[in-house]
Amino acid sequence: MTSTTEFDQATSLIRADDSALHHAELRDDWRFGAGIHGGVLMALAGRALSEDLGAQGSGHRDPISVSAHFLSRSLPGPATVRTEILRHGRTVSSGMAFIRQGDQERVRVVATFGDLADKATADPARVFSAPPSMPPPEKCVGTDLAPPELLKESPLLQRVDLRLDPDCVGWAVGMPSGRGAVQGWLRFLDDREPDPMMLLFAVDCLPPVSLDLGIPGWAPTLELTTHIRRLPAPGWLRLKHSTSLVDNDRMEEDAEVWDSAGRLVAQSRQLTRLGRPDS
Amino acid sequence: MTSTTEFDQATSLIRADDSALHHAELRDDWRFGAGIHGGVLMALAGRALSEDLGAQGSGHRDPISVSAHFLSRSLPGPATVRTEILRHGRTVSSGMAFIRQGDQERVRVVATFGDLADKATADPARVFSAPPSMPPPEKCVGTDLAPPELLKESPLLQRVDLRLDPDCVGWAVGMPSGRGAVQGWLRFLDDREPDPMMLLFAVDCLPPVSLDLGIPGWAPTLELTTHIRRLPAPGWLRLKHSTSLVDNDRMEEDAEVWDSAGRLVAQSRQLTRLGRPDS
Repeated sequence: MTSTTEFDQATSLIRADDSALHHAELRDDWRFGAGIHGGVLMALAGRALSEDLGAQGSGHRDPISVSAHFLSRSLPGPATVRTEILRHGRTVSSGMAFIRQGDQERVRVVATFGDLADKATADPARVFSAPPSMPPPEKCVGTDLAPPELLKESPLLQRVDLRLDPDCVGWAVGMPSGRGAVQGWLRFLDDREPDPMMLLFAVDCLPPVSLDLGIPGWAPTLELTTHIRRLPAPGWLRLKHSTSLVDNDRMEEDAEVWDSAGRLVAQSRQLTRLGRPDS
Repeated sequence: MTSTTEFDQATSLIRADDSALHHAELRDDWRFGAGIHGGVLMALAGRALSEDLGAQGSGHRDPISVSAHFLSRSLPGPATVRTEILRHGRTVSSGMAFIRQGDQERVRVVATFGDLADKATADPARVFSAPPSMPPPEKCVGTDLAPPELLKESPLLQRVDLRLDPDCVGWAVGMPSGRGAVQGWLRFLDDREPDPMMLLFAVDCLPPVSLDLGIPGWAPTLELTTHIRRLPAPGWLRLKHSTSLVDNDRMEEDAEVWDSAGRLVAQSRQLTRLGRPDS
């Protein structure tokens, strides 16, 4: 039934005659503000690379590390995803992908894939982080409480059930905590369960920590690298964003994704713009 | 005089007739163990992109975010660096580079460049980290105290003055701290001062934190992304490595580089292999 979920529809590909070229449709449903959500683009590139790297019999269908540089704003409409296989190895394989719309390149991706099946239940050797501590989803702040204009201009928010820790939403009423931390719960509203492709999307779903620092406005991503460390268990994901250094025009933001079994399943770091129009 | 330093010699390029192709020589002097040090390769790719992105009059000569996926081991000898310009923007420009030796690709890089001059002395909006606290360089453990066989098989150690915090070197005598932290001081032995290209090198200079966790052996890099946040001041750099999640076969490792003026000038995150032969 997976293929009928909204997320799988949004990231579905049709292979062209040229076998390294895939056609996609960027759906307005997954727009956040002026552009298609970056996490959907990561998942699209991830799915194309999974097919093309895995097709060689390597079994390397799971993203291990995915680096994306965002070049221009993706808009609703047709797009292509082209892949290039860089190397097949014993334990991992690497490839490149780029997403274009017309003559504009949107995202350039380099990625390393492997097989996470042996990690499904493996205990890590050492973990030096902890899942976000917050009230259960029913006591958190749902996106249905977002301002009507944000909901209207961001149809993506109708696809996800995102519940923010009440301690991290003071910025929404003009009282940012100043801690530079945002955390919350995430699932798809149609109950599509987590997998590595959803994790590529999930790392970019929380509001930017700059809001919690009292810096208003969007924080469009320049570069985002995600490590997928485990196959996630079914159920809610817990997300946590933090930062080490914020400038007036750029910010680094780290995300952790924890699954319902209490395991750290994905980590990401991104560099964003701040306080400037897109250019 | 910069062009005569060892590091600048090691990362020098000769442009081919095909203007996007550069010839380089990977010098045995910069080998660490079986292969050329990854930080030198990052700096080589960074220098090629700086020339080719900056040549367009954009002034975008400084690396802002550089993502590298390591495909095969680089060996002493000739190499080529090919670049592709992806996008010129108002505040940043992006490009791709790949390093080859013969018919083998070594490293694939995607990067975003800009102009860090306006950040030379700018105060960040917020910093949520602190420089590593450790004794001064003269009270730290120099690499001249490394085992003779390591010094012999890693000529790179004759190029750098690396002084490790004595609290983080117990692993060298069979007593790892278990904290998963390594920190130290770095400068070039020929006094070549820090710049963004040195920072691309510096983020990968400390021993892997896996050693401090009692996990022996190399930790070859699969993927490494570096953000350069400031032009560094002259003098010693302070380096700090940490991790959030270590598996038996893979580890994420974060690096911070602080300059002599006490500013966080570079951040990186990498995913490494652990405990397996290169493949």
